[in-house]
Amino acid sequence: MTPPIVPFVGKSGSGKTTLLEKLIPELVTRGLRIGLVKHDVHGFELDQPGKDTYRLRQAGAMRVAISSPQQFALIGQVEEELALEALAQRYLGDVDLVLAEGYKRSQLPKIEVCRAARSPELLSSADELLAVVSDLRFEVPCPQFGLEDVDGVADLLQGLLSISKAGTLHTALRVDGREVPLKPFIQEMLSGTVQGLLAGLKGAQGKTIDVRITGDPPIADK
Amino acid sequence: MTPPIVPFVGKSGSGKTTLLEKLIPELVTRGLRIGLVKHDVHGFELDQPGKDTYRLRQAGAMRVAISSPQQFALIGQVEEELALEALAQRYLGDVDLVLAEGYKRSQLPKIEVCRAARSPELLSSADELLAVVSDLRFEVPCPQFGLEDVDGVADLLQGLLSISKAGTLHTALRVDGREVPLKPFIQEMLSGTVQGLLAGLKGAQGKTIDVRITGDPPIADK
Repeated sequence: MTPPIVPFVGKSGSGKTTLLEKLIPELVTRGLRIGLVKHDVHGFELDQPGKDTYRLRQAGAMRVAISSPQQFALIGQVEEELALEALAQRYLGDVDLVLAEGYKRSQLPKIEVCRAARSPELLSSADELLAVVSDLRFEVPCPQFGLEDVDGVADLLQGLLSISKAGTLHTALRVDGREVPLKPFIQEMLSGTVQGLLAGLKGAQGKTIDVRITGDPPIADK
Repeated sequence: MTPPIVPFVGKSGSGKTTLLEKLIPELVTRGLRIGLVKHDVHGFELDQPGKDTYRLRQAGAMRVAISSPQQFALIGQVEEELALEALAQRYLGDVDLVLAEGYKRSQLPKIEVCRAARSPELLSSADELLAVVSDLRFEVPCPQFGLEDVDGVADLLQGLLSISKAGTLHTALRVDGREVPLKPFIQEMLSGTVQGLLAGLKGAQGKTIDVRITGDPPIADK
């Protein structure tokens, strides 16, 4: 099974790694097994020339693994870059949550890290955002956290996980009668939230639920 | 699906890596996708302190992956060492053949590399051996190849692969009427060989085949 994936995006130097470095231990303390995927567009070299594993990779092995009592490593050659989802499905099936660094072009809802000293503008458009972590405030319809608010971001992620574990419903959204396509993740979030709200309402379980909201939307204008 | 796995064992300095370094390109030339697993009993460090991936692993991520257009890497923390078979099943499902370096305690039939200048004795007992690659000759009931005979070893491995792809039969061996337990790999080798020999014999397909051999065994005494 593929674990939920949340990309952390932001301009270089915005503080993504610094945030993740604080967030991961907090999530681990909460009992979660965390996978991390770093996107490297330039290519990288983990192995060192002259080592056995390096020599055997140079000899043409498509996958080279090293296994020890404490850890294992796998280096694989690919003809084209693995999609984040494919990578998580194939190689990270045993974690609870995958945090990705980079992948700003991913279709997945993202958390953007933005630091005023680096740039006052967001990379992502408002509809791509799951949350913003910044020392600035933006007009975006998603939760915003301060750069030091590790607990807040951890709460959000833990909430999303409990939703994605709760099982999903088919969720359709109509705005003024017209159906709006929803990404699976947003469907899950919406159905999870409605399920949560109706948990105490007798007779609602297993039924078709219609929620109609009229009047002015309570979210900021785009 | 787990690809077939062949451990290459031998005392340190016997020439395992040197042999594999020649063997892998030969197998790749023959169209095979090769995975390589190196057993490291002492632990290893691929990553470099200070790098993002190192920092995030130190922060507690159970799995850290890096993905680029040419290659990807995965480093995983384990509470106990992954068995060779489990590692191949989970992480090397997309290769045709896994060659392992080390794993002398594995139950899998092994190829032992032995060089006179290093040691004139084999590590493995005769019944563990799939083949020996050496500048010496031993009294063992398995194929033996010279240290430079890369083609010979590649032929053997390719033969084993075609057998394991051909499908298996249930194969029982009785010696003087008493059933001898056979490892799955040996069952496959035996059934594959018999299938191959009988391929031209009309009417043998899909039937129960009994082969009885009497007289002195043609193999060396143990």
